[in-house]
Order: sequence, then structure tokens, then C-alpha cells
Amino acid sequence: MTDTNLTLVLHGKGDLRLEERPVLEPGYGEVQLQMRQVGICGSDVSIWVEGQHGGYALDGPLALGHEGSAVVIKLGPGVTSLQVGDRVAVEPATPCRLCSFCKGGRYNLCPHVKGLAMPGCDGHLTRTFVMAADFCHKVPDGVSDGEAAMAEPMAVSVQATNRGGVKMGDNIFICGAGPIGLLCMLTCRARGVNSVCISDIDERRLAFAKELGADHVINVRGKSPQDIAQEVEDSIGDKPNVTLECSGAPPSLSTAVFATRSGGVVVLVGMGATTKELPTAEASFRELDIRGTFRYANCFQPALKLMASGQVNVKPLMTHQFKLEEAVRAFETAKRGEGIKILINCEKPRNSTKREHAMNPSEALPL
Amino acid sequence: MTDTNLTLVLHGKGDLRLEERPVLEPGYGEVQLQMRQVGICGSDVSIWVEGQHGGYALDGPLALGHEGSAVVIKLGPGVTSLQVGDRVAVEPATPCRLCSFCKGGRYNLCPHVKGLAMPGCDGHLTRTFVMAADFCHKVPDGVSDGEAAMAEPMAVSVQATNRGGVKMGDNIFICGAGPIGLLCMLTCRARGVNSVCISDIDERRLAFAKELGADHVINVRGKSPQDIAQEVEDSIGDKPNVTLECSGAPPSLSTAVFATRSGGVVVLVGMGATTKELPTAEASFRELDIRGTFRYANCFQPALKLMASGQVNVKPLMTHQFKLEEAVRAFETAKRGEGIKILINCEKPRNSTKREHAMNPSEALPL
Amino acid sequence: MTDTNLTLVLHGKGDLRLEERPVLEPGYGEVQLQMRQVGICGSDVSIWVEGQHGGYALDGPLALGHEGSAVVIKLGPGVTSLQVGDRVAVEPATPCRLCSFCKGGRYNLCPHVKGLAMPGCDGHLTRTFVMAADFCHKVPDGVSDGEAAMAEPMAVSVQATNRGGVKMGDNIFICGAGPIGLLCMLTCRARGVNSVCISDIDERRLAFAKELGADHVINVRGKSPQDIAQEVEDSIGDKPNVTLECSGAPPSLSTAVFATRSGGVVVLVGMGATTKELPTAEASFRELDIRGTFRYANCFQPALKLMASGQVNVKPLMTHQFKLEEAVRAFETAKRGEGIKILINCEKPRNSTKREHAMNPSEALPL
Amino acid sequence: MTDTNLTLVLHGKGDLRLEERPVLEPGYGEVQLQMRQVGICGSDVSIWVEGQHGGYALDGPLALGHEGSAVVIKLGPGVTSLQVGDRVAVEPATPCRLCSFCKGGRYNLCPHVKGLAMPGCDGHLTRTFVMAADFCHKVPDGVSDGEAAMAEPMAVSVQATNRGGVKMGDNIFICGAGPIGLLCMLTCRARGVNSVCISDIDERRLAFAKELGADHVINVRGKSPQDIAQEVEDSIGDKPNVTLECSGAPPSLSTAVFATRSGGVVVLVGMGATTKELPTAEASFRELDIRGTFRYANCFQPALKLMASGQVNVKPLMTHQFKLEEAVRAFETAKRGEGIKILINCEKPRNSTKREHAMNPSEALPL
Repeated sequence: MTDTNLTLVLHGKGDLRLEERPVLEPGYGEVQLQMRQVGICGSDVSIWVEGQHGGYALDGPLALGHEGSAVVIKLGPGVTSLQVGDRVAVEPATPCRLCSFCKGGRYNLCPHVKGLAMPGCDGHLTRTFVMAADFCHKVPDGVSDGEAAMAEPMAVSVQATNRGGVKMGDNIFICGAGPIGLLCMLTCRARGVNSVCISDIDERRLAFAKELGADHVINVRGKSPQDIAQEVEDSIGDKPNVTLECSGAPPSLSTAVFATRSGGVVVLVGMGATTKELPTAEASFRELDIRGTFRYANCFQPALKLMASGQVNVKPLMTHQFKLEEAVRAFETAKRGEGIKILINCEKPRNSTKREHAMNPSEALPL
Repeated sequence: MTDTNLTLVLHGKGDLRLEERPVLEPGYGEVQLQMRQVGICGSDVSIWVEGQHGGYALDGPLALGHEGSAVVIKLGPGVTSLQVGDRVAVEPATPCRLCSFCKGGRYNLCPHVKGLAMPGCDGHLTRTFVMAADFCHKVPDGVSDGEAAMAEPMAVSVQATNRGGVKMGDNIFICGAGPIGLLCMLTCRARGVNSVCISDIDERRLAFAKELGADHVINVRGKSPQDIAQEVEDSIGDKPNVTLECSGAPPSLSTAVFATRSGGVVVLVGMGATTKELPTAEASFRELDIRGTFRYANCFQPALKLMASGQVNVKPLMTHQFKLEEAVRAFETAKRGEGIKILINCEKPRNSTKREHAMNPSEALPL
Repeated sequence: MTDTNLTLVLHGKGDLRLEERPVLEPGYGEVQLQMRQVGICGSDVSIWVEGQHGGYALDGPLALGHEGSAVVIKLGPGVTSLQVGDRVAVEPATPCRLCSFCKGGRYNLCPHVKGLAMPGCDGHLTRTFVMAADFCHKVPDGVSDGEAAMAEPMAVSVQATNRGGVKMGDNIFICGAGPIGLLCMLTCRARGVNSVCISDIDERRLAFAKELGADHVINVRGKSPQDIAQEVEDSIGDKPNVTLECSGAPPSLSTAVFATRSGGVVVLVGMGATTKELPTAEASFRELDIRGTFRYANCFQPALKLMASGQVNVKPLMTHQFKLEEAVRAFETAKRGEGIKILINCEKPRNSTKREHAMNPSEALPL
Repeated sequence: MTDTNLTLVLHGKGDLRLEERPVLEPGYGEVQLQMRQVGICGSDVSIWVEGQHGGYALDGPLALGHEGSAVVIKLGPGVTSLQVGDRVAVEPATPCRLCSFCKGGRYNLCPHVKGLAMPGCDGHLTRTFVMAADFCHKVPDGVSDGEAAMAEPMAVSVQATNRGGVKMGDNIFICGAGPIGLLCMLTCRARGVNSVCISDIDERRLAFAKELGADHVINVRGKSPQDIAQEVEDSIGDKPNVTLECSGAPPSLSTAVFATRSGGVVVLVGMGATTKELPTAEASFRELDIRGTFRYANCFQPALKLMASGQVNVKPLMTHQFKLEEAVRAFETAKRGEGIKILINCEKPRNSTKREHAMNPSEALPL
């Protein structure tokens, strides 16, 4: 196998292959990127294992990867915002720029959006990639390539907390201590909240959340929504005014509704089942807002700034590092639920002989 | 039976009695009212028939009535905002004025609120009533006593449309063409919306809605949420950006979610079952807001102004008129689902001999 | 003079000429338009008479015109939203689509925007014009070409009232009964406001405003800001919660501040002097919001819908009609302050002999 | 002089006297307080020196003090939210609770408000004071009496930053490094802003601001608004999206307008001259919001929480400590502009002989 543009391609349910792809040239307003670090997302694993995710079914070979950082190696015509050599975080979806959603500032709702690693649009788990320049965000000095790859899930948490209106003084309840729940917690902290209570059914995750800065942790296994709601209130000393439902677990919506303060907000961050029970009387009488959140609009710059300023430190979440050549093994690790965030280094090894021995993640390049 | 203070009292499930009650004196900040017109609400019928409503169970004799207009007949100490002789619409719930909800402008969420005709707090289907002066809103000239009684359900529609952020240019979908659905439609019109589509399962209601100004009506009987959503979009020419779910029917929440435009709002106005199915994936991917609404805060003045200016004409909804002496018969009429809004005149007949013959609603006093 | 593409060009202060310009071809995402009606704006007159407007100085020949309607006659590549023959209203400024303002939904603040008839970017007082397709808004049936040209000043009023948060039940004070003040009044009405008081120093304008639907009119000539504020409050029966300052007259800002209700909003719609006195203590103590407004973002569609639905009738404001060949005479009429809105028909006469006699505006084509 | 209720009373311009006042009993909903620490505000000095402040003229003897902490020593009837022995921060203004502002959540705009140490309403620079219980906020453990007295100026900064919509990621420019400017800076930090630039004409203040955490400081002495605006942009790397004008200096409003990012917000926090020049063209073209701020509504609890959590540390600002018996000397110190916040301990010395020698502020009780 020559290595002109090694790419991780999903050919069908369960059929993940490393293969060579042609190198594309950047068009008007585009840049050619040399990919650096790319994170594995739960949705990547899901589409690999299930052949579909969130209602989107695989309909042909699809390159995966949508959480990536890169270096600009060539500018297409008309590009003035970037220069060759700039390190960037890739916002992995390009909207139409013409519809009412795009013009109204909510381009994440654009019905014509092309999302990387979504059926019909290849992702960037590859060596060389072409992307719209304005969706490549310059990475501030001091933010590593690995952290820059984390800008994508960070942007999810910025959007979710924007949608929740999370602000100084709030009390927050987060259901689910997975990567997104944890990043939401860190982002809430950066927003100046008063208190964060986080729940999960896994004690190790809760212990890690506590270490990362949760004020209160609750193991919800086997408890009723009302009992959990009471426990949340007791721990904080008040009902939380914003609940971020990051678990996707069906009963968590009821829990979120019972737990949240009257007039407060529940944000639907986690996915899980497509339909869930909503206690509508409770939501009505207490004027709750239940808000969906989808991807992000205008969130990459804030995400990068939070990391650059040190307001959010994502490094403890970056637990594993693989090389692109090891991508299938990286996915298998993700499937086993090991660690929190697994990153894949897409750079071509400068001296392959030397690198062949650096297979142990713990010996990998610093992130 | 002497008529010192004739009052309609619910003594238990199904046990509604007219009886004499003592006349109370107004305390500090209160006024004594001679009641004029009082409307019957679905919740009144519900608590009569079921012995409970919305989770509140009857726990002793309870005077009904919470949609009323009156005349001020005596001022308690400290009252400066009203004068004897003022006609008022009664906002039927007094909050604590001390908690964070009261101080934050959302007094309808006050956990200490005392709501008229709620267990523990008598309603005003009576001759003489005592109320906090600042919850008695002066009725503008040109607004009749009957219309002033309609200020209460109008305030519900003002609050619901406030919660929905209904504004000029919006396309609106209203599920349910009952009294609240119809008032919401009229209020949306007054807010300058572009188009209103209203649904129901009753053709007569839909015909009436059409007459009142609906742009589009849809009979949803036997149709799936997705099919109804498509029909709504086809009729308006776009998905509605605000849906007001006024029916309380379980599938209507799904219908509302599928029907509403991405980034739009669904307001939970109707009650019905305490729990309903929510298509969470749809709500998340399209960043919908699903918002509860409860009673009203600061909505009586706008409601009265809308009627005074002619922006909203509620008269077509005022279909029946009874006297307080006929209250039980009025409730039976309401239970049969006749008409839209049934009003009860609480004034003491000046010449009872003469009035005894005026039993036919069609001969009743002008509203 | 051949008439391949007759265009009204400003060559210098006071030097307005009709001349032939080449016909341009539409590029990617663009359409070629045959212009229909184009309105004259105060800023057009200002740049003609003064050689500059709002800080922008003429720096070369400039075609005027930025309030126009047209018919699509050719599609550039990539255009799918329009078809040949579509009637459109032209939103006369194309932003960069790439910056944080564009992506945030406030493209009117884009620092790279190209505004028609602004130095460096020709306007559309011409026969044939090329424009970005997504800034050409389809005109609904029933809205005439003349009304469609009014979509531009209407969009100004939609933006101004958006910025003011004007909504149902509001009391509104509008300073200045010129075209924009009057359109703001009509738009406020469509938003369901309770009461509109409008001021001017010209009795005829006030009389016209009254006829168009103002509840109260005040001639402010020679009165102090405080006295006017009191008069506004007396007329409405309360202080207005939103004031739209459309006059640009220096003392009007003070008047607006004194007049507006505590916690209310003053919108700076009119221009006039670049600096004005602000009563900061009054604005602080009473927590006023003083908000700038600039052009419009996402306002053309609502403007067109308001006209299509009949919620706003702009016809009474369309007082004069000229042909493109008469454009200089049209500008002279505007300079004399005659009428309210002067429109120029840019269509090539099909039979020029016949048209030469139709010079009297009153005989002009129906708008 | 017996010490039944020693009180600092202003008898006229420049005439400040310590005198005995009767002890009042708490009425319904009130509590009797033993005052602890009371801060001196610039407005206190102003009314002492000028006989008036902010348009309010002294009209009789007036006890000063409105930044205080206390201990509850007696409950009036109806009080359930507090207990004897509770430490509280006093929110020093009681609104009418009945008007549309009070009911709408903006009770700071109540036209009937009674503000402590405002003409007609005595302040609490006294031993024993009576106050509405719901305006006495329990002080969390770990927050000292001196810090609790700082809750008042902290609440000003919470309100000002609320009005500015200050949130995570914002770039902030603060004009004026006095106590309020510094507290605003600390509050902005707690809200998660990206960068704070602060200006003053006093190098010592700027040095202190830098020490407290300002990212950038600018000495504006002798510079034009436009030059300062450029310097602010250069220091931050972008225009600030929120500017808090805390200096009250007339040219600062122009500076704020030129400095602020298009679509951004200028908050009028400082007072100074009652009227200032506003560059209206700049404010219009760039759609700025200029917002007044007045006192606070619902800000004491957040202020206390910020201190309790350590998100804001006000201790470095508490530079001087006096006893009530030394109040006049404390005011003279404040008048000389020494230090930042001067506190007066209102507790009765338990052993007066011993205390007579403790006149040196540096020997005072720990704050």
C-alpha cells in the first residue's frame, strides 16, 4: 500500500478499511489541509457498528472523522482569512449560506448542510483534506493539535450551554458523565455557575467527574425520577435552574423535568431512543422550557478561546492516542468503551522505521 | 333561603350547592367586590365531575368561580389604586410577593400562590367577594362586564402567546379549537401573525374557527402526526414557527413537534394526560423549544386593552348567560359541552318577581 | 443616445446624468434583472446635493438607486431559488457571508458589505442590473411593482421595530412623520401595539399621519423636550414603552429619553447630526435602552408578507411616479420635498412615441 | 451622650452629626437588626458635601448608610424567612410591590421605592434598624460581615453586567478603575469573559486593577475617544463587545461608543454630568445598544453566592475600618479619596473603656 492519501473508509456495517484516496485540490474559498489529530466520536462507532446513526443510514463507502485539527498546506482562490502553515480546528459541516437559517445565524439548522462523515460527505480521517476556509478556525498558540481536535466536542458543549442560557450563579444538573457531559460541566464552570451536580450509573465515571470539579455526584441506578430529583435538590440546596440531559437514557427526560426549578430549562443533549416520555403536566404547571440542541453555530471560536485562556482544560479527557495506520484498532478500543477521548494522529510518519515501535499509546506523541 | 351572600359551593364530587355565606370585610390592601359576570371554565366542570383537577383533589367545601368581573363596593385600608364604583376584572390568584419568583416577575410560578377555586381558597361565584386590590384590574369603558369576565381566559392566551414569543410575521399552528385555542387564535391575530392553521376533530368547531378568522383548518381525526404535520405545511406553504398545543390530546405533542419549523417553539397550553410521548430526536436535531405555560403574569392589562381597542373581539365566544340562582343548570349545560363560554350573572336581581321569568338564556341581560 | 442600458449616474456633487452603461452578465449565484420601479430615498438626494451622505463621500461616478423591484431575465450558474420571469424586490446590500456578523445573523453589520449606490458600488436606477440571487426576494402575487420597491423602506421599519422589540400592547412614540416615521407607524400597528403618538413640526405631515392611523399627533415646534414628554404621556395616558426617533433632529434624542417609560427602549432611526446630547442621568436612573438600527437583516420577506396580507398598506405613501428618462426631474421633485415617496419606472417604453406624452405623474402607470 | 441607638445623621450640607435615635419596633413582615458593618459610598460623601446627589436634594435631617450587614435580633409578625441570630446583608430599598415594575421583576424601577439614605428615608449607619425581612438576605457561612456589607456595591456590578448581558467569551472594556469599575471587572471574570481592558487617568488605580486581574490597562489622560478606542482594540486584539462606562466622565461615553464592537453594548454605570455627548451616527450605523443601569433587582443573592464560592474576592478592596463612634473621621477619609472601600463597624463596644484606645484603623476588628 502506497501512502498518497491514507483514509479510513467505512464500506458497510462493520466493514472499516484503511485505503488510499486521491488528493483533492482546493476550490474557490477552500483550503487544502494536512490533517493532524482526529478524535473518535460515539456516532462514528455507532455508524460503524450499526450501519446507521441518528436516522442516517450508510448508503455507500464513507470516510469517517469529524473532530479534527489540521495545518493549512494550500490556499484556494479567494481565501484571505488563512495562510499556509496556519494550524486550524475544522468545523465539520458546511451550510448553504443562502437559506433563512444561514442568514438568521442558526446555520446548524440549514436543511442543505453537508456534515463530514455523514452519508454523502466524507470525513477527514485522512492525510490530506479540502475544506471551506471559513470553517477552519485558527488555533491559538498554546493550544495543542490534540486539544484543537477537542474543539468539536467542546463546541457541542458551548452550543448546549448557550441553548440552556447557562450563566453566572446558575445551579446545574447534568445527566450523564460521558465525554459530552464532562465537557458541559467544564463549560458550565467557565460560565460562572454556582453549583454542578452530575449523575451517571457508573461509579468510575462519577469519581472522575468529581475529580474534574463536580460539586455533587449521584449514582442514579435503580432510582425513580422523583427520588433522583429530590436527591439533586438536597445536594444543591435548591432545584437546578438548568438541566443538561446528556445521557440519552429514556427515564432521564422525566428525571430532568422533575428535577428542574420552575421556570427553568432542560436541554436535550444526549440522543438515545428517538422518543421519550415527557411529564407534560409537570412541564406546563412549572413553565419549563425543554430545548433541543444540534451541533453548533458560531461555537468553535469560543471553544478555542476557553482552551487558550485555560478556563477549560480538556487534557484530562484525552486518554488515548493512536496513529492513522492504527485507526481500526483505535475504533475497537472506542467500541470497548475504554477511556474518554481517543485521538488519531493523521500525520505521515517522517521516519516510518523509527515509528513502528511507538505503538503503545502511552508512548505516543504529546497531545 | 335568604340572599345575603348566595354562593355556589362544591361539597364533594358531583355535589354542587347554592348556599348562603357570610359577607367578608376587606383587610389591608383589599377591596370588597360585588361580583358581576363569572365564566365557567373546563377545570370547574372537571373538579365538579371528578372531584379533582390537574392533580389537585377537593379536600372540603369549595366555592367555585375564577373568571370574574365585579364592581368595587368598599375599600380596605391602604388602597389607593381603586375607588368605590370601579368596574374590575379579577385576576384570580394572589402570590406571596416575597419569593424569588414574585420578585423576578414570574409570580405565576410562586409556590405559595393562592388560586381562587383551588382547594383551600374559595372562588367568586358569589354575590360579594374580597380580593387584593392590586389583582383587581380596572375595566376600560366600552368593555362590558361579560367581556371583562373573559379577561381571564384571554390572559391565558396572552401568556401562552408570550411564552411562544408569537410576533409579527409568524406562521402559527394551533392544535384544538376549544375556547382557549380560539382565544389564542384571536390573540395571535392581534400580534400580527402572517397565518394561522387550526386543527380539531370536530367539524363544527373548525367551521366556527374558520368563521372567526383561521386561515386554514384541519380535521385531524384518524391521521398520523407526520401526515398532519405535512398537511399543516402544505396549507401554510411553510412549517409554522410556533405551535400552540391547546388540545391536551396525547398524540398532539408528537404532531406539534413534527409540524413545527426547525428552531421554532411548541407551547404546552392544553393539559389532558399528565405524561405524553415526545419525539426527542426530532426535537433535538431541529432545535425546537417546548415550553410550558401556566396561568399568567402581568397579562390582565394587555387582555383588557385588546378588548377595549377592538383588536380582539371575544363576543362571538360568549354563547350562554345564566343567573347565579341558575348556576347548577349552567354547570350542567357546560358539562354537556354546549356552546363555547357560559357566563353566570352574580348580581342580585333588583326586582326578583320580574326576574323569575327571565330564565331563558336568550332573554338574559346583554353581556 | 441609444438605450442599451440607460442609467442614472452621479458624477459629482450636483452633477446627475443619464447615460448608457454596458449590460453585465450574471456570475455564479447571480441573476440578471430588468429593473421595474425604483424609489428615491432621502440619502440619494443628500449624496447628490452634498456629494456625501452619512460620512460616505463620493469618490467617482456612481449609479444611484437602492429601493427597487425587478423581473428576473437570466439566471447565473448555480441559481435554483429563482426562475426567469419571477418578480423580485432587491435587498440592496451584499455582505461577505464569511465573517462573524454574517454567520451570527446580523449581516447588516458586516464590515465588508457592498451597499448599492454607496461609493464603490453602483445602484440600480438602470434598465438591466446584476444581483446576488439570494438578495432578490420573490414578490407575492397581489403586490405591485411599486409596492415591491417600497419593500426597502418597509424593511427599514421592520428592522427598527425589531430593534425596539415592538410588540402587542405597547405604547409607541414616533418622532418625525416623514416616510420612515409613517412606515414605522404602520408596522407598529401590524405588530399589534396599543397606541401610537407621532410628532413633527409640519402640520400637513401630522394631518396625514392622523389619516393613516396615528392615535395622537403632536406638533413639537418650539417646545422643550420635557414639555413634549409630558404631552406624549398625557395623550397616551401612560409613558410610551418604545420611542422610535425617526427625525434625526438634535433635540429629539432628549425628548425621546424624557418621554420613554422606565425600562423602555429608544431606537435611533433618523440620522441628522452625527452627535447629539444624551440625558445620561435620566437614561441611567430609568434603565432605558438606546439602540441603533442600521438597514435590515432578514426583513425583506416580512416586509413583503405585510404588504401581501394587507396588514400594511403603503399605497397612500406612493405619491409620485416618473419614468427613468425623467429621473433628473424626479430628483428635483424630491429635493423640493414634494409628496412622500417618488418612484421611477425603469422599464424601457415599448412604444416610445406614445409614452412621450405621459409625462404627467398623474397619468403614469399604475403602481 | 448615652448610647441607646447611636446614629450618623446629616443635618444639612456639610453638617454630619452622631446622635441618639429611638429604637424602632419591627412591624408586619419586618425584622429588627443590629447593624454590623456599613460601607461608605461615593453618593454618601456627595450628599454630605453638596447637600444633594443625583438630583435628590436634602430636605431635612437624614441618617446615612445604605451598604450594610447586620444580625437579626427580633422578628416582626408574619416573618418566616429569617430567624433571630441570622446574619444578613441589607438590600437598601423597598419597592411598593404593587406596581407594574414590581410585578414585572424590575422593582428597582418602582416609582414608589423607598431608598435608604435617600431624602425621606433614613439609612442604617446606626446601632439598631428596622427593615422589611424579604430585603434582608442571609449571609452564607464563610462570608464575613465586612464582605456582606460589600454585597451592595457587588449587587450594582451584578446588575450592570446583567444589563450588559456579559457572558462567557466576551471581551470587556471598563472605563474607570474606581470601586464599581473594579467590582465590575471581578464580576465579569466570574462570568467567564475572555478579556478585560480597564481605563483610568490614575496610574495607581490602574496598577491596582492590573494586580486584581485586568488583562490590559490604559491611561486615557489627554487622549481622544477615537485614539483610546484604537488602543483598546489593539490591546484586546478585537473591539470589546461590552463596554461598562463606570467613570461618569463626559468624554467616556464617546470613547465607549467608538470602542465597542458593532452590535455590542455600552452600559451607563457611572453618573457624573447629567447630560453627555453621544455619537449617534456611530451608534446607529453599528447598531450599538446603550443601556442605563440603576441599582439592582434580584442581585443580592448572586452577589453573596459569588463571594461565598470564592468566584469573587472583594477583600483587597476593603482597605479601611472605622467604628461608628469614628464615623465623621471615616467620612473625612473617604472625602480625601483614600483607599477603596471604607467600612464602619456599627456594633456597640462590649467594653467601652478598652475600645477607646483602639482608634487606629489598623487595630480594628477583622473584617
